[in-house]
Amino acid sequence: MNTKIRPILTVGSMAFDSVRTPSGKADNVLGGSVNYFSLAASLFTPVKIVAVVGEDFPKEHLEFLSKRNVDVTGVQIVPGKTFHWVGEYDGNLNEAKTLSTALNVFEHFDPKLPASHTDCPVVFLANIDPVLQEQVLNQVKDHELVAMDSMNFWITGKPAELKKTLKRVDLLCINEKEAFLLSDETSLEKAAKKIQTMGPANIIIKRGEYGSALFTKTGIFLAPACLVEDVIDPTGAGDSFAGAVVGYLAANGANRSQMQSDPSAWDQLLRRAVVNGTVMASFTIQDFSINRLKTLTKEDLMHRKEKLLRMMSLGQA
Amino acid sequence: MNTKIRPILTVGSMAFDSVRTPSGKADNVLGGSVNYFSLAASLFTPVKIVAVVGEDFPKEHLEFLSKRNVDVTGVQIVPGKTFHWVGEYDGNLNEAKTLSTALNVFEHFDPKLPASHTDCPVVFLANIDPVLQEQVLNQVKDHELVAMDSMNFWITGKPAELKKTLKRVDLLCINEKEAFLLSDETSLEKAAKKIQTMGPANIIIKRGEYGSALFTKTGIFLAPACLVEDVIDPTGAGDSFAGAVVGYLAANGANRSQMQSDPSAWDQLLRRAVVNGTVMASFTIQDFSINRLKTLTKEDLMHRKEKLLRMMSLGQA
Repeated sequence: MNTKIRPILTVGSMAFDSVRTPSGKADNVLGGSVNYFSLAASLFTPVKIVAVVGEDFPKEHLEFLSKRNVDVTGVQIVPGKTFHWVGEYDGNLNEAKTLSTALNVFEHFDPKLPASHTDCPVVFLANIDPVLQEQVLNQVKDHELVAMDSMNFWITGKPAELKKTLKRVDLLCINEKEAFLLSDETSLEKAAKKIQTMGPANIIIKRGEYGSALFTKTGIFLAPACLVEDVIDPTGAGDSFAGAVVGYLAANGANRSQMQSDPSAWDQLLRRAVVNGTVMASFTIQDFSINRLKTLTKEDLMHRKEKLLRMMSLGQA
Repeated sequence: MNTKIRPILTVGSMAFDSVRTPSGKADNVLGGSVNYFSLAASLFTPVKIVAVVGEDFPKEHLEFLSKRNVDVTGVQIVPGKTFHWVGEYDGNLNEAKTLSTALNVFEHFDPKLPASHTDCPVVFLANIDPVLQEQVLNQVKDHELVAMDSMNFWITGKPAELKKTLKRVDLLCINEKEAFLLSDETSLEKAAKKIQTMGPANIIIKRGEYGSALFTKTGIFLAPACLVEDVIDPTGAGDSFAGAVVGYLAANGANRSQMQSDPSAWDQLLRRAVVNGTVMASFTIQDFSINRLKTLTKEDLMHRKEKLLRMMSLGQA
């Protein structure tokens, strides 16, 4: 395999979202974790999706993804309706409130990988049932790097299953509240260290508008978020953050054995990945749904990254 | 005047605090803005205090300050009781809830500067009535740099007076909520830009455990906070942050004319000052009252600063 082309396999939800934020509302728009993840990651490297949608899901969108370096042949289209999430954000844009969840076709999702998908070196398990996450992982041969997201619903609802999957994960991306819930700690560093003992050597704790904290085996990196004046809809921030992080890692050949053989280079690579994730998320939240991501270019990303790096710098002197 | 020795004049409160936090409680312990500020700043440069206390205030503490490079000859000791603040912190350690305030001798505080205090090049107006802040400023000849703190109580209670004082200030340190209140904006950057039009060219917006954001005329700097596992009492974090910021600036010869003649060097100096403030605050909150600051050494500070800088760094590669 050409080391330059390292596709990511991702499993998660494709959905319709209805969301209300202080800036307005959007009904039945495209959403779901793998939608956000794949649009972000595909700016760095090809992505292969495993997901399920109903017959109501727009074919044009799948075609659009195909043109954007996203392989959608693993998206099952089954009779019924697509997963529908209804949520809102009040004053606190860092936290969504779920009003309703209609699982629809997602309820009986049985992730089966096409043969073409079973040799992806990098895997991202988006926030779904940890049992499904593990089923997907079982189908991937010789994966070199596994990243994962989860949420309070699974941490409290399926703790044993979650911990089983976690053991096989190299990089966990979760938000601050989830990290505290999972670790039963209240300080960031203690939480991260405890989660490291559960499996993932690397943890990114997301803090919404306040940035994120990366914990590797050799260091800690505290990244601020970009200053965004016009936050329209925070939905998808975390998934697109993960998309850029994992996309950047895959494009730069990151893998588990490098992490073990050269932990210092690995740590630096992850820091850079986090900065890319930060910038990606800042674009996502500037419009409803995946609208901003659909037109985002690598140049847009690089330009804002330079700005962020200047805001993180102590300067030359 | 030897440019190496640039004393800071500060005016504010010396108090007894009774505080309850999730870690415990402390009754009638030493507090007040200038107490925290001067202990922090005096690690960098001499400090002269203007304040008022009652006859119940411990002389030993004033003697302790004297030994620590703090000139207390401007502290008025008057009949009556010292200012007493009673407050608590619940789950959110970023925000104190005031339960009661007994102004006592502070109610009729008439800040008069001894002749020895009127030529301090650097002035810090801690969080008190903006009218008193201005009275102090009026007594200082040829000041070269003026920094200031304020709070919601004055922003809503004395907006006209506050804005009058603000016009004469070079650096404003306030927290995020106060910045939004003062500017009537809800985004950090918009708030800072609007406050810049009110007078202070430089603004540090403090975000508690999430760090701070610095806005100068030439740049923005986003600083994370140190990760502190054992937060005992957040009281004084902001005042000691300001103490290290202003102390560092004074010790490094920062002044208004440099800000105008070499804005880039000024911007970099302020970034470094913010890092020092960040580290100082992280020590303050590890014990009740000024306990940790009383034993803190420059070496402690430098050691933790190195750690923080590594957590802010993208690395060598």
